[in-house]
Amino acid sequence: MPSPQTLTSFLSQNLPQKSRAQLRTSVLPTLLTSITRVAQCLRESQDIQAAGSQNTSGDTQLNVDLATNEIVHAAVRTCPSIISASSEEDEGENAVQHDAGVQPHQEGEEQYAVAFDPLDGSSIIPANWSVGTIIGIWDGTSALHQPARKKQIAAILGVLGPRTTAIVAIHLPELGSPLCFEVGLSSSTADILVIRESVSYLTPEAIKTRYFAPANLRAAAQDPRYKALIDHFIEKEYTLRYSGGLVPDIYHSLIKGHGVYVSPVTSKSHAKLRLLYEVAPIALIIECAGGRAADPASGEDILAKSVGDVDQRSGLICGTLEEVLMCIEMLV
Amino acid sequence: MPSPQTLTSFLSQNLPQKSRAQLRTSVLPTLLTSITRVAQCLRESQDIQAAGSQNTSGDTQLNVDLATNEIVHAAVRTCPSIISASSEEDEGENAVQHDAGVQPHQEGEEQYAVAFDPLDGSSIIPANWSVGTIIGIWDGTSALHQPARKKQIAAILGVLGPRTTAIVAIHLPELGSPLCFEVGLSSSTADILVIRESVSYLTPEAIKTRYFAPANLRAAAQDPRYKALIDHFIEKEYTLRYSGGLVPDIYHSLIKGHGVYVSPVTSKSHAKLRLLYEVAPIALIIECAGGRAADPASGEDILAKSVGDVDQRSGLICGTLEEVLMCIEMLV
Repeated sequence: MPSPQTLTSFLSQNLPQKSRAQLRTSVLPTLLTSITRVAQCLRESQDIQAAGSQNTSGDTQLNVDLATNEIVHAAVRTCPSIISASSEEDEGENAVQHDAGVQPHQEGEEQYAVAFDPLDGSSIIPANWSVGTIIGIWDGTSALHQPARKKQIAAILGVLGPRTTAIVAIHLPELGSPLCFEVGLSSSTADILVIRESVSYLTPEAIKTRYFAPANLRAAAQDPRYKALIDHFIEKEYTLRYSGGLVPDIYHSLIKGHGVYVSPVTSKSHAKLRLLYEVAPIALIIECAGGRAADPASGEDILAKSVGDVDQRSGLICGTLEEVLMCIEMLV
Repeated sequence: MPSPQTLTSFLSQNLPQKSRAQLRTSVLPTLLTSITRVAQCLRESQDIQAAGSQNTSGDTQLNVDLATNEIVHAAVRTCPSIISASSEEDEGENAVQHDAGVQPHQEGEEQYAVAFDPLDGSSIIPANWSVGTIIGIWDGTSALHQPARKKQIAAILGVLGPRTTAIVAIHLPELGSPLCFEVGLSSSTADILVIRESVSYLTPEAIKTRYFAPANLRAAAQDPRYKALIDHFIEKEYTLRYSGGLVPDIYHSLIKGHGVYVSPVTSKSHAKLRLLYEVAPIALIIECAGGRAADPASGEDILAKSVGDVDQRSGLICGTLEEVLMCIEMLV
């Protein structure tokens, strides 16, 4: 097995040298390195507790939610091409106030908006289960009111677990085909290694074990369609993996090459996930890995939408194409 | 909130000074520190791969299985009172060959046998989910053919996740009541902090969310009793958390104060877990937290058994008393 190559070398070979120079040399390495810092912060926070506040979604904020949010913002402030940023822990999308000394943006240069959830999965942090960081990168100065499939050009799904790893998807019109790869994050940008150059779902013939991750299973008590879907998974002997952490649940399917994640929308169970901070970046990664991500309320592709406001909610069915189609048929 | 106290101080206050001096000052701190090293090893192993061998249970061994096994053995060899050791990665129970310079065991001093699984949950390591280390500590020179409830006097359940944490249970005849506490593991013994002095299940009145973790759910396709139990959990709106990692799954219930884990034994699904390395230490921790751990084949308490050989298998139903009784009624 050859030694893994560095992120710098991999991006240099795979991204346009000039037109995406900022994305390649500043935005992606800086944001990935911030995930390493988020992991360090969490590792040193043995004393997990509520910060005494709520975010705009009404979730109770933990001390680590606030600390990790500041870590990603600090990284964003060093990138001249990131013009605006929004976070699940903030209110709305805001212009980035860059650090003193950061070269101001020049006319004609790349401009990006980022949207992130610095620490997804707070409920399982006390039990020390893997959690995640989600980042979407949009072409232009805002992530709002933009067609997602065209304008969200990259996404990062970082897992804060025994190791710190991330899957990165890049979907640029100037690339022949999208990139989807996995990196191992270490303490410095120079050490980021591409540990899997291509992350993609297996073809139906190559699948040995089929996995399912049913979110909000309690909704199956009221919704006969969701209960019928669960019964189908059991009867067909799918293997259950459901941590309740969105990032590790999706990541598992991508690494195993098979899986379907269902966060349903029923009459009693409303859409729970944030389209901007969670569902849209995940949908980009899933599509770049050859899978599909759909809205369980309509069957529509997630990336066919645009994000109307930062708190817009969505359900999610995602994973391999065949499984998503089957779930849509049973739920929609 | 007062600062957490150190492990040294906590054990000094809670364990007999003389009769358990080795347990208090050598065995427990040394084994806990070895879990920190196991976590470091895993964190630095971005390149997870098969070692090309199988353990005695027929599992494919990963390079990290072998490396972490050696880490725990190296710790054991520094403890003069640990007379024998067995590991899921080894063959049988063996006399410990202590390091040169380790003071030889003196007549009348404490003697212990340890049994451990250095890295439980290999299948979810590539996806970077939390995994664990399990250690049982037995009074005397062997863990085999001993009544578990009397002779297994301590157990450690370590979670290798975003942080490194462990729950420790100590059940000594000379203590009025058992100890069950959580530690946060850092890079040195001096830094081990007791982050939760008492880990215990909630009383039925205090439970807000009820959790279930159904292992080997595929068995429900053939076994109507297991399927009926799953349907019961869904109908009663239990919350699903099932990572497929035994240690994090049990740990979650202990931290949340409620939960039931079921690894069934059916006509088509044999007992899968190792009694010595997995089920017996977990059963001690569950009982010390006020819960119950039973064999799904008979309903018998796990700790009423003795371990006949290192590869003896068992199913497991464990968690809060009420849930375990309900599962026994539905499955046995």
